[in-house]
Amino acid sequence: MSNGVLIGLDWGTTNVRAALLDAHGNAIDERRGESGVGQFNQKDFERNFDALTQDWPQVPAIAAGMVGSRQGWVEAEYLSVPCDTEVLSNSLISFKYGERDITIVPGLKLENGARYDVMRGEETQLAGFLAAHENFTGTIIMPGTHSKWVTLKSGRIVDFQTYMTGEFFDAVSEHTILRHSVSDQTGPDSFFADKVKMLAANSGSIEGELFGLRARHLLEECDAGRLRQELSALLIMAELRAGQTDGFDLNQHVVLVGTETLTVFYETALKAMGCSTQNHRGTTLVWPALFDLAAKANLIEGQIA
Amino acid sequence: MSNGVLIGLDWGTTNVRAALLDAHGNAIDERRGESGVGQFNQKDFERNFDALTQDWPQVPAIAAGMVGSRQGWVEAEYLSVPCDTEVLSNSLISFKYGERDITIVPGLKLENGARYDVMRGEETQLAGFLAAHENFTGTIIMPGTHSKWVTLKSGRIVDFQTYMTGEFFDAVSEHTILRHSVSDQTGPDSFFADKVKMLAANSGSIEGELFGLRARHLLEECDAGRLRQELSALLIMAELRAGQTDGFDLNQHVVLVGTETLTVFYETALKAMGCSTQNHRGTTLVWPALFDLAAKANLIEGQIA
Repeated sequence: MSNGVLIGLDWGTTNVRAALLDAHGNAIDERRGESGVGQFNQKDFERNFDALTQDWPQVPAIAAGMVGSRQGWVEAEYLSVPCDTEVLSNSLISFKYGERDITIVPGLKLENGARYDVMRGEETQLAGFLAAHENFTGTIIMPGTHSKWVTLKSGRIVDFQTYMTGEFFDAVSEHTILRHSVSDQTGPDSFFADKVKMLAANSGSIEGELFGLRARHLLEECDAGRLRQELSALLIMAELRAGQTDGFDLNQHVVLVGTETLTVFYETALKAMGCSTQNHRGTTLVWPALFDLAAKANLIEGQIA
Repeated sequence: MSNGVLIGLDWGTTNVRAALLDAHGNAIDERRGESGVGQFNQKDFERNFDALTQDWPQVPAIAAGMVGSRQGWVEAEYLSVPCDTEVLSNSLISFKYGERDITIVPGLKLENGARYDVMRGEETQLAGFLAAHENFTGTIIMPGTHSKWVTLKSGRIVDFQTYMTGEFFDAVSEHTILRHSVSDQTGPDSFFADKVKMLAANSGSIEGELFGLRARHLLEECDAGRLRQELSALLIMAELRAGQTDGFDLNQHVVLVGTETLTVFYETALKAMGCSTQNHRGTTLVWPALFDLAAKANLIEGQIA
């Protein structure tokens, strides 16, 4: 443990992951805890931090995610896009907790005429991707509760857009009449693949297809697993169509960043649209990102500026 | 009461309305009760009917709505479109309850390749509209929990499509992150009107606009009533765009059938798209429809066939 130089914290809405990183940015030790964002006060955050980092050396810490929101430990205001890793590392918010320096990565915001958008946490995964693909130009899709679509030009985040696909899926499958029709879900199966192919070739509305799932369930015996796959297909294709409508380019490099479970659904749907992707697990990008940002900001002990 | 010749029942999912109709189809007396569909067994439906029609003469009864579903009193299977009032009146399901004839209006279904759809209750409102507009050609939009779009040609129902707009509104405003942003709603105000005008002129996706409501709420002080109006605008415009995508014609006669509260939202949105409408209250169409169907099927006492 004595070779630890930096503590990284991936502090989201429900969970927090902490890692002690060595001088190469590798995790020597990792721990998990509850996030507390939304319920914790200042003292609670301190106690939670102490519990997570107990026995680790007194090195600086850097945190990303909802911990920097208005309901978090210390607010790190949103930074406007366009922006790159350089600007991000110059905009970190640092404070003293006892003898220790704690730094928080700000989220990003977009205010463009009538368009408004925000992200918090994803900017760090993007920084992790950019640490290994410095001058990337292309579209990054980050599937999730709130999917983020991001346009990058020469390593610069120039535009992004959120689609609430994951949240729609939960709301529709749990709180509408379709709850009678759908069952639990694993990965994409042939029903998902068939439906996305059909939709890719079809010009009808997704809205019209949704009640059709219910109607078919009433008119025919129909497997609930199949309906859940088809509901996923409808909502993911709605997102892909919306992303194209909103001007995101699927003809250049398309990178998927997210959990393996989710990215495989999107990969299948994008393939049906004739689009190949490169996939990254979002969580594995966080430690390299935090290490890179901390190094750029000269936060690491013994670091030569 | 002694001049009552027919009992009409508008028996939906949550409520039932009953009317005693005279020889001209006018309601002499009206009552309301709970529907019971989904919870009632055979005996419960009988008891409910007895309570509703107590003191009324022993005349035949005709019922429309979910009372004819699989979970209803007696199932009246869906009838395929295309269909007209003539076909509908020849497809009524009648049974004896004691000495009394009870008749149920079937719902409609569409099975067209991969498209599936159903309606139950709306076919009766359509029959009520057609009783006064016999050879109507045009598009009827019936806003609601499950909005129905219907294409009629010379008084014939040739196509229909359900959009789950009302249910989406509830699911999104109560069960997603937007619940933090929206408040109670009355009729459409200028925020609604502005937003539908903006969307009518705009080619961006509705999906992208949704999270934007939340983001603006985070970045600016923003009135919750305004956000609710804008959420209504987004979801109604999504339905109108979907209806057009699915081939419904908004350039010919467009008729709105529904509650006054809802139709005024749709009227405002359609106006922003350059489309004028004729509005009807759905509930006022039911007694004329049931009377017309019963007369066509020779169900009315003392009626000369």
